[in-house]
Amino acid sequence: MAQKPSIPKGTRDFTPSEVIKRNYIFDIVKKHFQIFGFQPIETPSFENSDTLMGKYGDEGDRLIFKILNSGDYLTKVDEELYKSKNSAKITSKISEKALRYDLTVPFARYVVMHQNELNFPFKRYQIQPVWRADRPQKGRFREFYQCDADVVGSNSLLQEIELIQLYDAVFTDLQLKGATIKLNNRKILAGIAEVIGAKDLLVDFTVALDKLDKIGEEGVKKEMLSKGISETAIEKASPLFNLSGSNVDQLQMLGDLLKDSEEGSKGVDELCFIVEAVASLGLQSSNLAIDVTLARGLNYYTGAIFEVSAPKGVFMGSIGGGGRYDDLTGIFGLKDVSGVGISFGLDRIYLVLEELSLFPEAIDRSLDVLCLNFGNMEGMAALKLTTVLRNAGIKADLYPSAAKLNKQFKYANSRNVPYVILLGEQELIDGSFVVKNMESGEQKTYSIDNAQEFIDTL
Amino acid sequence: MAQKPSIPKGTRDFTPSEVIKRNYIFDIVKKHFQIFGFQPIETPSFENSDTLMGKYGDEGDRLIFKILNSGDYLTKVDEELYKSKNSAKITSKISEKALRYDLTVPFARYVVMHQNELNFPFKRYQIQPVWRADRPQKGRFREFYQCDADVVGSNSLLQEIELIQLYDAVFTDLQLKGATIKLNNRKILAGIAEVIGAKDLLVDFTVALDKLDKIGEEGVKKEMLSKGISETAIEKASPLFNLSGSNVDQLQMLGDLLKDSEEGSKGVDELCFIVEAVASLGLQSSNLAIDVTLARGLNYYTGAIFEVSAPKGVFMGSIGGGGRYDDLTGIFGLKDVSGVGISFGLDRIYLVLEELSLFPEAIDRSLDVLCLNFGNMEGMAALKLTTVLRNAGIKADLYPSAAKLNKQFKYANSRNVPYVILLGEQELIDGSFVVKNMESGEQKTYSIDNAQEFIDTL
Repeated sequence: MAQKPSIPKGTRDFTPSEVIKRNYIFDIVKKHFQIFGFQPIETPSFENSDTLMGKYGDEGDRLIFKILNSGDYLTKVDEELYKSKNSAKITSKISEKALRYDLTVPFARYVVMHQNELNFPFKRYQIQPVWRADRPQKGRFREFYQCDADVVGSNSLLQEIELIQLYDAVFTDLQLKGATIKLNNRKILAGIAEVIGAKDLLVDFTVALDKLDKIGEEGVKKEMLSKGISETAIEKASPLFNLSGSNVDQLQMLGDLLKDSEEGSKGVDELCFIVEAVASLGLQSSNLAIDVTLARGLNYYTGAIFEVSAPKGVFMGSIGGGGRYDDLTGIFGLKDVSGVGISFGLDRIYLVLEELSLFPEAIDRSLDVLCLNFGNMEGMAALKLTTVLRNAGIKADLYPSAAKLNKQFKYANSRNVPYVILLGEQELIDGSFVVKNMESGEQKTYSIDNAQEFIDTL
Repeated sequence: MAQKPSIPKGTRDFTPSEVIKRNYIFDIVKKHFQIFGFQPIETPSFENSDTLMGKYGDEGDRLIFKILNSGDYLTKVDEELYKSKNSAKITSKISEKALRYDLTVPFARYVVMHQNELNFPFKRYQIQPVWRADRPQKGRFREFYQCDADVVGSNSLLQEIELIQLYDAVFTDLQLKGATIKLNNRKILAGIAEVIGAKDLLVDFTVALDKLDKIGEEGVKKEMLSKGISETAIEKASPLFNLSGSNVDQLQMLGDLLKDSEEGSKGVDELCFIVEAVASLGLQSSNLAIDVTLARGLNYYTGAIFEVSAPKGVFMGSIGGGGRYDDLTGIFGLKDVSGVGISFGLDRIYLVLEELSLFPEAIDRSLDVLCLNFGNMEGMAALKLTTVLRNAGIKADLYPSAAKLNKQFKYANSRNVPYVILLGEQELIDGSFVVKNMESGEQKTYSIDNAQEFIDTL
């Protein structure tokens, strides 16, 4: 019996049109990665389990796809453990490899393994799929691409400035004008928690603050109280709830608020440096905005935190994010390597470009010319002509059999071909071919010995 | 304790230089796929197990990487089966997904699932990794890319001709001149087995014939005898052992040998048609050679069989192969869809290009210009200049800190940068910058307001 085929939930087939549009985004991102001096690396799809496990928290461990060992894998499970039928404990005995969960841990592993051949600062980009056994839902997939650029081995703030310029360069090239690059610094969050006397509650404080957009000032205060942050502390923090004005104004207010915290003041200084430099360099089409409520990746970011939102009016989560982390490679034995990086959210950028109709017109046109097939002799002459067109770099094809003309025209329409070539019995005798413009219906005859005349019109 | 990191055997990290060279090959292959009217698709890395299992024989099933189900997966194994501790039987209960083993079965699955949106003939290309739990050895990996172009829904021999031209176009563009595209037809092999009276022994016959290169005429005859092929039969087949001359000569001899076999004669006719057409169209740099010993993929190919060998003098297995198959999609319920396709062996083509030094010079140069960093003020001016260069599409970078000059120059050398820019205290005052040609040592000064003058020299 033939199977009715399907694909695993959370995965996708990509049609030609989708692949072409995705590659359009990838190509532009890659171009600017390279212009900014980043170099590509690729790592294997699966890593040894111990490279990945324990790096993403318990929830992450659970979401990592594990690969079953080959052969008679159960012999490696001793009798007692086997009897327990404990899936969690047996997993490590029957699975030694796992699909990559992100590109960051494999990158850290790469840097440590290749440290002697690398020249620091090492600027790498990496565009590869990752896999997560998450519950699939709208816009969340079990297989998706990540698209990361990181610099390791330099703690210079010039990197942060460059990464902001890189976001701007990519979004400008994609015609996606008006993206907002939001910027924060973990040191500022830590400083705030310190000056309000809630240092131990940094995470609770920032998680609550992060919701300001959604639940408003009263909601945030209520959540903070419920987490054990005192009324006095919340009172001290209240300027944060109404931060407004230019980046410079906000930094001034933050400077005042944090003047007694060394760490906080350092965070303010860093942001001032970045904001001033970016203002002096200028951005092409994006906006840079201080946002002290930004708290993504607080578990690993130690300095700058980035997040990009789509232009106003487009309802979409962040289309990019990143930050600075001070000890990426420590877990694999290489200490004191500071890094900073950003990523682009391909799937969301795709949706935004679709929504704003920003993909170039006819981007997914797969054929410039289709030669119709009128029979053996004519078909062979048409194949010669097709060969000439292809040698000139034109996407050209010959219908493979002398099917009825309306069938061939239907195929031409289905492939959205702008020009159809007719080379029938009479043309074969005349040494000519007829080009039909499929949009205007106009027809023009060319000499087969001078196909260049037609090529020059394309 | 920090882990000493490693990667799974049979997998590879790719360095920047390797990624760039691989992408160079992919980009040329893709360009010609598109020029020949093929459209890209992508399928998920893992498929439902029942899509893959049973499609590649027992050995193939064994080599497919299986993915462990998530959660408490052992609860799905009933007690009795569990007690058996039979790995083979338990696998299907604890694993429902598997990594793709090739691109052909996922393509067949794709065609069947998307049949109502496709326009036949459907010409697709697909360049994605596949995974096999094979024993790793030199040149054989557990993760590697396949690079396939197939046409389904047409049984026209024009497709075979096109695919030969496609091979030629790609190898010519890669500067890999003198590749030999070997051509056979399963019908000819079947015809031979028929006329010598060994129809039931087709596979044994062809497997032995395939070894003619390696074990010589005597060796082949001995193997045939040992497989039960009679001396008379071998005697009848003996013209095959010394087939020589042009393609046309060989086809004439084959025509004589196979005149009493309908199937064999059809095979000869097909090859004649292809050989004549290709001769008439001409190839740019490759050779087309009839090779009746070619027997790859005999389990599924039903017509043409292709295999490409590297130019003479390069010792490398085949760098490409393919053929026609008449019922690719039948297994998923769509009957009578003929297909023909070819693939490019990326890893081997890479090795051949390396061996023959055919990669373009400086292909892996990751940076055109490096600006040195002389301090805060100078660094900021250099960042402005770097921004101007980048906006002009030049791969430019600024050393991120004012490190000692010899350290910065060392970095420039390690990245193989052709031009280094010096913008120090004096240049900042003068509004100028100095460009040092790293090869000649020559230095030239430009005005910072007229960076275009330098850009124009690149």
